[in-house]
Amino acid sequence: MPVNQLFSRDSDNFRPSAIRAFARLINDPNIISFAGGVPSPETFPAEMLAEIAAEIIRERKAVALQYGPTRGLPGLREQIARICAGRGFTASPDDIIVTTGSQQALDLIAHTFLDPGDVVLVELPTYIGATASFLARSADLAGVAQDEDGLNPRSLREVATQLIREGRRVKMLYTIPNFQNPSGRLMTQARRPEIVALALELGFLIIEDDPYGELVYTNQADTTPLRAHDAENVLYLGSFSKILAPGLRCGFLVAGQAIGRKLEIAKEAADLCSGMLDQSIVEEFCRRGALPAQIERVRSFYRGKRNLTIQALERHFGGRASWTSALGGLFTMVTLNGAIDTASRIAVAIERGVAYVPGGPFFVDGSGANTMRLTFAKETDDRLREGIARLADLFNEETS
Amino acid sequence: MPVNQLFSRDSDNFRPSAIRAFARLINDPNIISFAGGVPSPETFPAEMLAEIAAEIIRERKAVALQYGPTRGLPGLREQIARICAGRGFTASPDDIIVTTGSQQALDLIAHTFLDPGDVVLVELPTYIGATASFLARSADLAGVAQDEDGLNPRSLREVATQLIREGRRVKMLYTIPNFQNPSGRLMTQARRPEIVALALELGFLIIEDDPYGELVYTNQADTTPLRAHDAENVLYLGSFSKILAPGLRCGFLVAGQAIGRKLEIAKEAADLCSGMLDQSIVEEFCRRGALPAQIERVRSFYRGKRNLTIQALERHFGGRASWTSALGGLFTMVTLNGAIDTASRIAVAIERGVAYVPGGPFFVDGSGANTMRLTFAKETDDRLREGIARLADLFNEETS
Repeated sequence: MPVNQLFSRDSDNFRPSAIRAFARLINDPNIISFAGGVPSPETFPAEMLAEIAAEIIRERKAVALQYGPTRGLPGLREQIARICAGRGFTASPDDIIVTTGSQQALDLIAHTFLDPGDVVLVELPTYIGATASFLARSADLAGVAQDEDGLNPRSLREVATQLIREGRRVKMLYTIPNFQNPSGRLMTQARRPEIVALALELGFLIIEDDPYGELVYTNQADTTPLRAHDAENVLYLGSFSKILAPGLRCGFLVAGQAIGRKLEIAKEAADLCSGMLDQSIVEEFCRRGALPAQIERVRSFYRGKRNLTIQALERHFGGRASWTSALGGLFTMVTLNGAIDTASRIAVAIERGVAYVPGGPFFVDGSGANTMRLTFAKETDDRLREGIARLADLFNEETS
Repeated sequence: MPVNQLFSRDSDNFRPSAIRAFARLINDPNIISFAGGVPSPETFPAEMLAEIAAEIIRERKAVALQYGPTRGLPGLREQIARICAGRGFTASPDDIIVTTGSQQALDLIAHTFLDPGDVVLVELPTYIGATASFLARSADLAGVAQDEDGLNPRSLREVATQLIREGRRVKMLYTIPNFQNPSGRLMTQARRPEIVALALELGFLIIEDDPYGELVYTNQADTTPLRAHDAENVLYLGSFSKILAPGLRCGFLVAGQAIGRKLEIAKEAADLCSGMLDQSIVEEFCRRGALPAQIERVRSFYRGKRNLTIQALERHFGGRASWTSALGGLFTMVTLNGAIDTASRIAVAIERGVAYVPGGPFFVDGSGANTMRLTFAKETDDRLREGIARLADLFNEETS
């Protein structure tokens, strides 16, 4: 399929796997890739994981290789409770359900709470893996504006109020407050209690997806979750995919007892339990106290790449585009000045040895054609610099 | 919760996890347990799995610890294609989707094909993990009789025809033809093409769930799948849980291209991809040619236990009950003579140091109160003999 078509908003090929397939497709060393959104394998602590895996299989086979509880390994849920405390909110192990990656948490929530025609409020732009789960339950999506401080509470109130006035069932807000995929934005702390209060006032749940909150590259970013402001109305989703390794498929959700019970029943029908070897490995990695140092290594790995990418954007795109500050996470989103459709340029970009993900399909309202998502996770420093220069050349005619 | 209540048909606690929790609960060494339905950890090839896991994590971290294709690791799908050939039917790697256990395959099928009010035909009795997925989509279940030759085609025609006449949408038949959970029955080969033809004639899919087909304890059992008789209308589900280890959560489904494409989209929303370390381990285990010997070890392990359990039943229950022959798999189902409710006796059974799973909740038509499911997977030979004797004492008053 031609790459332009791949990134058509209407194509059902524009899905997370399509982006990953596209990213793999362009593993040509002549192409510098800002496409893809997966963590760098260089951040995976393979040696320690190998040692733990072998030990656990030998010594705990009756647990690690057996079926396990649907809610997840009790020891891992205790470790996750400690991680939550470190992030600034209280969660008992009984509030936690281990999921087969964060994606499963989204799908269980969609299955449990959404009926056809229900409305899910999503950020403009938002993560397409989440919208896939919502759309699979025939929900409708309504976009809420973001600005440099993240999700805009005024827009949230306007959109939600209008929908409720029209008689629509607004069931939930889906938000990625910390270093959002795809925008790289951080929602300010000032906005968080306001948004939580708004959800309570207007009667919808908040789904807080936080895979990137630990990937912070500055001391000035406060990533304390919305869940810290309300333990009942906010369902918190975490993941080990970006801080440890996504192949282990280990995510978690934090919900109150009543909601948790419903989600547990849905999870049992979905896959009985998540991988017990994966869970045992993650538990042991945490139990050994190895996670903080691992997170520090991941931060160091990406921090420099983020900095030089932003510097290269300033140098090559200054006055011709804007971009998000990406104080953490894996992405920055570039918005070109003028009416340029980045999707229409991707084939030429690849010819010229550079790749990105066109931003349009991340916007559920049809906007964003002049945006592109760039990850700084994949390439070496030199290639990141050279890649931004190539992008600047590509869009030179149109933006200068 | 009192154990009687646990096994009430109406309790939403009667779910696979409840059985597993119950089985764990009675890990008291004084209680001989025929409850639970999990494979014995003694059959898990821990040493080889530990070695493979460590090697793979060290040498293939960019695959085994990373996100992977939604359909599954290509090399594993090739190995599965070979396994299918060994079972008597042709499947191309492109026909195969790796799933997070067989349970996920059931859930993806339910999500993709079932609308509220659709009818799923199930065996009497049937596996409650499957019915959980069907009921989660608000489908209705209709029971089809089994006899010693497995699912009864005459009953299938009657039930399906009657429902179709009433204007119901009969979407699929769910069957476990080989050593069914919970009954332990094997569907004869003579019946298989007849059932496939019936499904084609009446216009419904067949979901063929085959986790136990390799666990054969006699030379006289032909387990060739229904899929061998029709590659289009039969969706085949396999699993490594009983032949290798369930903690690896590695199942697969075989479907044609059109159906496979729909299921792949559902899987992507469900969990993006199955565990890549798990898949990598299973692939390497198969690639080394270790699976046939492992399956032979598993058969040897259970064969003797099955034989002595059946012998003990003959000795203690002869003339007072009937039981399925269990020529493979993990279960036999005992039907007591007379109107005895096995669920009402479970608390007393535990007091007397023996446990089983009451059969009633496996029957969607409300029958089966006088049945119980026994697994011979868990206990030593001596305890299996002693346990059957205790059961006989327990039901002595009522059946003699």
